[in-house]
Amino acid sequence: MPHPPDVSLLPARHRVRFASIDRDAECGEHDTIFQGARRAGVRIVGACGGRGVCGTCAVRVAEGEVELLQPTAPHARARLANGWLRACLARPLGDCTVEISPRSLAPVARAEVDGRAGAVFRPAPAVRVHTIALAPPTLEASHADADRLLRALADPRVRRFDLAVLRELSGRLRAAGWRLGVCVHDDEVIAIGEAGRRALGLAVDLGTTNVAGFLLDLQTGTRLASLGIENPQAAFGADLVSRVNHAVRTTDGAGELQQAAIGAIGALAHDLCAAMSAQPQDIVDVAVCGNTAMHHLLLRLPVAQLGRAPFVPALEAALDAKARDLDIPAAAGAYVHVLPNIGGFVGGDHVATLLATEDAWRAGTSIVMDIGTNTEISLVHGGEITTVSCPSGPALEGGHISCGMRAAEGAIERVRIRGDSVEAQAIGDAAPVGLCGSGVLDAVAEMRRAGVLDLRGRILAGHPAVREPDGRRELVLAPDVAFTQDDVRAVQLAKAAVRSGIDLLLREAAVAEAAIDRVLIAGAFGAYIDVSSAIASGLVPELPRERFTQVGNAAGVGVRMVLASVALRERARGIASRCRYLELGSLPGFQKAFLRRIGFD
Amino acid sequence: MPHPPDVSLLPARHRVRFASIDRDAECGEHDTIFQGARRAGVRIVGACGGRGVCGTCAVRVAEGEVELLQPTAPHARARLANGWLRACLARPLGDCTVEISPRSLAPVARAEVDGRAGAVFRPAPAVRVHTIALAPPTLEASHADADRLLRALADPRVRRFDLAVLRELSGRLRAAGWRLGVCVHDDEVIAIGEAGRRALGLAVDLGTTNVAGFLLDLQTGTRLASLGIENPQAAFGADLVSRVNHAVRTTDGAGELQQAAIGAIGALAHDLCAAMSAQPQDIVDVAVCGNTAMHHLLLRLPVAQLGRAPFVPALEAALDAKARDLDIPAAAGAYVHVLPNIGGFVGGDHVATLLATEDAWRAGTSIVMDIGTNTEISLVHGGEITTVSCPSGPALEGGHISCGMRAAEGAIERVRIRGDSVEAQAIGDAAPVGLCGSGVLDAVAEMRRAGVLDLRGRILAGHPAVREPDGRRELVLAPDVAFTQDDVRAVQLAKAAVRSGIDLLLREAAVAEAAIDRVLIAGAFGAYIDVSSAIASGLVPELPRERFTQVGNAAGVGVRMVLASVALRERARGIASRCRYLELGSLPGFQKAFLRRIGFD
Repeated sequence: MPHPPDVSLLPARHRVRFASIDRDAECGEHDTIFQGARRAGVRIVGACGGRGVCGTCAVRVAEGEVELLQPTAPHARARLANGWLRACLARPLGDCTVEISPRSLAPVARAEVDGRAGAVFRPAPAVRVHTIALAPPTLEASHADADRLLRALADPRVRRFDLAVLRELSGRLRAAGWRLGVCVHDDEVIAIGEAGRRALGLAVDLGTTNVAGFLLDLQTGTRLASLGIENPQAAFGADLVSRVNHAVRTTDGAGELQQAAIGAIGALAHDLCAAMSAQPQDIVDVAVCGNTAMHHLLLRLPVAQLGRAPFVPALEAALDAKARDLDIPAAAGAYVHVLPNIGGFVGGDHVATLLATEDAWRAGTSIVMDIGTNTEISLVHGGEITTVSCPSGPALEGGHISCGMRAAEGAIERVRIRGDSVEAQAIGDAAPVGLCGSGVLDAVAEMRRAGVLDLRGRILAGHPAVREPDGRRELVLAPDVAFTQDDVRAVQLAKAAVRSGIDLLLREAAVAEAAIDRVLIAGAFGAYIDVSSAIASGLVPELPRERFTQVGNAAGVGVRMVLASVALRERARGIASRCRYLELGSLPGFQKAFLRRIGFD
Repeated sequence: MPHPPDVSLLPARHRVRFASIDRDAECGEHDTIFQGARRAGVRIVGACGGRGVCGTCAVRVAEGEVELLQPTAPHARARLANGWLRACLARPLGDCTVEISPRSLAPVARAEVDGRAGAVFRPAPAVRVHTIALAPPTLEASHADADRLLRALADPRVRRFDLAVLRELSGRLRAAGWRLGVCVHDDEVIAIGEAGRRALGLAVDLGTTNVAGFLLDLQTGTRLASLGIENPQAAFGADLVSRVNHAVRTTDGAGELQQAAIGAIGALAHDLCAAMSAQPQDIVDVAVCGNTAMHHLLLRLPVAQLGRAPFVPALEAALDAKARDLDIPAAAGAYVHVLPNIGGFVGGDHVATLLATEDAWRAGTSIVMDIGTNTEISLVHGGEITTVSCPSGPALEGGHISCGMRAAEGAIERVRIRGDSVEAQAIGDAAPVGLCGSGVLDAVAEMRRAGVLDLRGRILAGHPAVREPDGRRELVLAPDVAFTQDDVRAVQLAKAAVRSGIDLLLREAAVAEAAIDRVLIAGAFGAYIDVSSAIASGLVPELPRERFTQVGNAAGVGVRMVLASVALRERARGIASRCRYLELGSLPGFQKAFLRRIGFD
């Protein structure tokens, strides 16, 4: 018989309780409070990503002991004003309870009416809600509870009960005086509850870097609240390839990644419901979209065959699974609808983007692109949709950039070089503490325009703001913020990946750049970029400005549409099966196309 | 935080390994090997039920220590010949490994062809088996594994995959060289495996006292093997009411009873598959029938409302649940079909009996009765079926009878009183060690006929075989076997329950006894009784002998029919919904009818 592990040899793990939001996180021996919180999907802001410079992860320790760390950034200190500490510079020494500053708590956006999503479709949710009243049984009329309820529903489509719901039914009927709200999915009773209680739906856009959740009133299709957190899978790798490798090569790596994804969705369900004074059990339907790797890791489908040529997904079709089989908190018998994939790494998030923007691309020739850590691009031409996936990496979102940060207060979003002076405009007109994605692209475009970068992307000496500490050149944007040669290289790789994808799509369809009627740029990053900078840096083709539309988080809109309407669920299936997926690596001249776009010309 | 329990205070639990049949059991401090084995569903015979008299629980200890107990029966000894021990008189003192004598191992009956079950229906299993071969994917043709498999199935009904199967699919396809056997249930792929492997089905008759399992070849409908074990729930009460009370009144009593039922089904699956050199994962469909309480306890549905007036089941309709949701070992996505209930305690086992005997009762006026610990009786008359449930208790099966035992070697099955002598005929012409059910009924009938019992059921002094140890009269049937006044009372209660049920059914339908065209007696007990004794004791109406048919374990036949054919599954649903259930307690004159039948007249 195996011996139990010697507990004294295990690394210490401390429990950090965030009492005000009713959440817990676990910290390993070397973890800061910020790292533990992020991994648990706790919605702490931490705009600079834990570098100790932004001050948006302020916490106070109510109970327990922490150790304050020496920051690497020159002007950073663990202690902020009024007893607040930077969570990214505080390490628990044991279990503790901390308070998050209200300003450091990523906001749950409450929106009673969402004009856009409400206008374009008629809600037709997969879950129908009924109120049923039964007469109490007698010795002469003692038919079973479930059978009488089905008869009272008077809907011949409904034929069965979820087993977990059945287990609750008899007790609930008697406790509620024989009157209940009953939720039906397809032919199955999936939830029972108080009559008249609002039926909620949760839509999730499971991105590689960020996870966005939306709480809907299913009967009206109205968005009630939304919230974004970082994807806790980031602890296992910033991009898809490193996560797939972690899943394939590490014992239980796949389990860790699944748990991280489930944890994020659970955190969103918890916090969104709390903001609406509801319970996760009020969620009677869930829709999730994500790229193929996110999809597989969430469902714990195998990814070994997806990670190496010929890059075959386990599943492309849409899937309905029981929420409980995925440990996603929801009503007893609720389903999770996972949007279909297109092929390779192009998944349901791109399907959702195409669904949400269909009116814009239906006619003519369009490029629809979802810019993110992985960038998906579709070319619609002559009624055909061709799709590729480009591994653009996190640089365009400010990730893996030396001073990169989220689009939050203090993040540089615009850069202008006028003669010898460099002007950096930060969000909220605050003192700059880092660069967000749009600032990254602006910096590169301006450096090129001002002659600070050469054609191959080398930073040139000569400009007074160019320095060379430790032999590596960088452009100083603000006292604490510089843009380095490595940062330029990361942007070059990203834009070459995206642009060569566009080139090859156009070549395969024999379409000239100038024939593109419109370019729809989706994604959080895409919403804020300066299109001129995107053109100047070579990320997108040089077309008249009016042909570009920045559509924001279209995947988030699309996944809400799918949650709210079975008709749109079907339309999403149709779009997914219409898309012809091209594996970039299989196309002749792929390497050449990539190398052609890595420089600036 | 709650402290972990102090392990030193917990009662000692010993693991007993039965190596030859690859099974384990757990014994509490005071348990014999026999008790532990029974509770774990280990198929040890133990015909006398653990009284130390029959010698059919012979084991040898290979490893570990046991303590031998002093038997209560006068001639019993823990030690048998050749180093064998009675498991019912051996108590483990620590973990041990034991060998069961081949003669003491309840036999798995192998039957390559089952004439009866094969003749009456055409197999049309719910699970269809296909062999699929795919071309390996390439960069140019890299569609997802699951989607390509569905397309290759070329059956538009099949639209989805069980999630657990999906998780295996990509690895299995590659390991098997892109050729697999694929099992489909309705619209869902529920199992994959080696191409050409036999698809098995498991049918289970979950009785209050005994559990019978049947392994079928699903494609031919052929019975491959069958096995009966005791229901391990017996540890929590012999009859339904005591088990329902245990579930309702004990913390986690419902969980214990569910685990016992699941354990029994798992034990059957294991032993039946082992006998056919198969694995439980080869089982791709399961059908289970049982009375309503067995049904609810297996599914862990609430029974509080079933146990008190107006005795309302949680569910009557047939149910399909995932085997894994019930912890029943089977293929990854296999379903368990649980037969519909009729009402009150009358469940799917009676539906199965009615299904198996339909040809016999379709025309005319019939009584169909399932005699067991609970006895279900249907009256078919004028095309209507009316059904009642009678709590007959275990006496008619030899349970709760002082010398009761299973129908095994040494069990008295016939009793004749000729003048002063009492002749007891035991199974296998062996020396009598106890009475089985048919012997119990014979004893009462003969005692009455010979004037040893009076009209009210009192044993009269005077016959030389009647003794009165400790002031309680008994009839001595053999040196170690007596039939006591309490035993007579138990039989009286049982036969009054059954007969008053028949009386009330006839009264409600306004049918005279003489108008009954046929009486179908089902159940293991019913198969072996002497019909004349059943009439003489008042258990059944006095009708010409040829109107009685003993149909054996018809529920076992019926549940196999349901497993083998979706058409018969529908027919079972139809029968269940045709039956009108009468709650005996709600009928006027119920008490009076019962009391009228308790004596002999």
